[in-house]
Amino acid sequence: MTGIAGIARQVERRTGIKTTARDVENILSCLQRVSHFWEVVYLSQKPFNIVAETVGILINEGLLENREDGTIGLTQAGKELVEVYRIYPKRHYACPHCERRGLDLSEFNELIKRFEQETKDRPEAVIDYDQGYVTSKTVISRIAMMAERGDLEGKKLLVLGDDDLVSLAAGLSELPQEVVVLEIDDRIIDYINKKAVQLELPVKAYKYDFRQSLPGEFVRAFDTFTTDPPETIEALEVVMKRGLAGLKGEGCAGYFGITKAESSFVKWREFQKMLLNKFDVTITDIIEDFNQYVNWGYLLESIRDDYSFVQVKPKLNWYRSSMYRIETVSGFSGVDNEPQECELYLDNEALIYKPVSLTK
Amino acid sequence: MTGIAGIARQVERRTGIKTTARDVENILSCLQRVSHFWEVVYLSQKPFNIVAETVGILINEGLLENREDGTIGLTQAGKELVEVYRIYPKRHYACPHCERRGLDLSEFNELIKRFEQETKDRPEAVIDYDQGYVTSKTVISRIAMMAERGDLEGKKLLVLGDDDLVSLAAGLSELPQEVVVLEIDDRIIDYINKKAVQLELPVKAYKYDFRQSLPGEFVRAFDTFTTDPPETIEALEVVMKRGLAGLKGEGCAGYFGITKAESSFVKWREFQKMLLNKFDVTITDIIEDFNQYVNWGYLLESIRDDYSFVQVKPKLNWYRSSMYRIETVSGFSGVDNEPQECELYLDNEALIYKPVSLTK
Repeated sequence: MTGIAGIARQVERRTGIKTTARDVENILSCLQRVSHFWEVVYLSQKPFNIVAETVGILINEGLLENREDGTIGLTQAGKELVEVYRIYPKRHYACPHCERRGLDLSEFNELIKRFEQETKDRPEAVIDYDQGYVTSKTVISRIAMMAERGDLEGKKLLVLGDDDLVSLAAGLSELPQEVVVLEIDDRIIDYINKKAVQLELPVKAYKYDFRQSLPGEFVRAFDTFTTDPPETIEALEVVMKRGLAGLKGEGCAGYFGITKAESSFVKWREFQKMLLNKFDVTITDIIEDFNQYVNWGYLLESIRDDYSFVQVKPKLNWYRSSMYRIETVSGFSGVDNEPQECELYLDNEALIYKPVSLTK
Repeated sequence: MTGIAGIARQVERRTGIKTTARDVENILSCLQRVSHFWEVVYLSQKPFNIVAETVGILINEGLLENREDGTIGLTQAGKELVEVYRIYPKRHYACPHCERRGLDLSEFNELIKRFEQETKDRPEAVIDYDQGYVTSKTVISRIAMMAERGDLEGKKLLVLGDDDLVSLAAGLSELPQEVVVLEIDDRIIDYINKKAVQLELPVKAYKYDFRQSLPGEFVRAFDTFTTDPPETIEALEVVMKRGLAGLKGEGCAGYFGITKAESSFVKWREFQKMLLNKFDVTITDIIEDFNQYVNWGYLLESIRDDYSFVQVKPKLNWYRSSMYRIETVSGFSGVDNEPQECELYLDNEALIYKPVSLTK
């Protein structure tokens, strides 16, 4: 019988992502609670590719079975393994009221309704820009969080990329003084501008590719930025640079989501070092599962097709991210604003990454 | 009329703590919502000494009045100031169900009751060791969070300092394999050991001053550590060192609270740099207000007595901290375990810090 540590080494070899015995243990814990691949990805909070390879290896080793209905479950040998290693079923205690965000939205019920009504005809997510938008509750929770922290009311908000339509929700809340959206997708720019005019909101969207410098008029012009960045380390660096270049100075804030499905804790650590050492900001909050994404149409066609258990339509909103809030502290004096080429979407932790064995 | 930026400079001069215009704005925002000093400290999430000096200066400037009943409120001039600067009343949307922790405790109702019953005769908080314990809901939320993340069930838990009695709650939950408490206060050591024997819990407390090396038998022996550290930067470093020295290796976790009342975001940043650069761990969560402290008896006698609005008994549990969770990632190979002298409790952000003008 292959031990847990051995499985971890195999997974690491196949994915090129650092994998510990505890990661495998965690996945085995989830497999005792749920029987769909995407639920395991969600519950384990591990990179998609680590979960896929772990499940693949467990099936190969006869520890897990892939049933005809697309579900997966431990075999007798698998059950013996978790008993020997004392691995227990995953526990889950998410607050049903706030879905883990810690925020009470009862004052925002009207805003949620209004936002949903006004954005019924929103553009669908497309693969070209790695899109996938969040639930209405997520959008309004972002508004509530920014409002609570004094980062929205009477303030200028910069939204870097906005398929989530946070700008329109902010406008509808009547809290911010001004909202600027910088976005690469013409469909979204046009949609936001059309709605903003129609609803008389102080919101304006402009075409922008964040590999370019932030246009001069937007440098040091905002109190707050929000974004939902692509998660290669290079893209994270460029997006943070643009957001921070947009802030007025000390005591300003940035909000963004980072997933665990596409970013391992090794990448998280590298990113956090960048925030602290390169950009000199403080991380004030990291709130798990804050951002919940509506399942997007192109998922299964964009990812690996070598495992049948992966090619199953997700039922729950499995793709989530932790909400980061960062703050510039006393003495913050901006960041450089040079153009910067970078790989936006593809690293070996990305959903769309295909192992070498498949691409040869 | 002194502007906001001018007030910030005065506060910075008096406290020696970096203070921005946004800090003062934030406090003025809170003063439009609540009228007790301790509520302003809680809501503003700013260091106690910044809030005290800001309020003091606002009173001096005739912007705020200190009423006979101990409350504080904006004067007409103060109301004009917030209008000119467009500073709005503080918003507050804490989830009433989970108190912002994001956790549903309904499976733990019995445990909360049991914990409260069994610890009715607990030792009171004393000033000698900067004590002050958290609410029962906080203790059980820590248990729930550790359990959910796979850091408790069947695991070995190290508790560094335990006036909160987390060890007994963990024991009563029947989840951990073993709990070790290292504590300096004999009253607490004796209390925990007596209860553990009486209730037949796998919990054992030992005398320990964390300025000493971690005893050999506890090095690389645990899956998880939890602590509620004193907040000078030196103390934070030593406590993290001991906690991490106690962990088995990669994929292990540490839990602890850091306040905003005694630690500015400048200190937070320094501490976060230490976690990342010196200890090479990932910060996985920062959850605001997770830890709520029961008001302790010695507060008013231990702090500055130059401001009458400060010398008022707090009504709500104003002292809270953000829950940090850190994780050791692949390749973690321990930390040094040398003895280290340090100032534990006193820096200029501490509650007990008295400005030079008072101590001369």
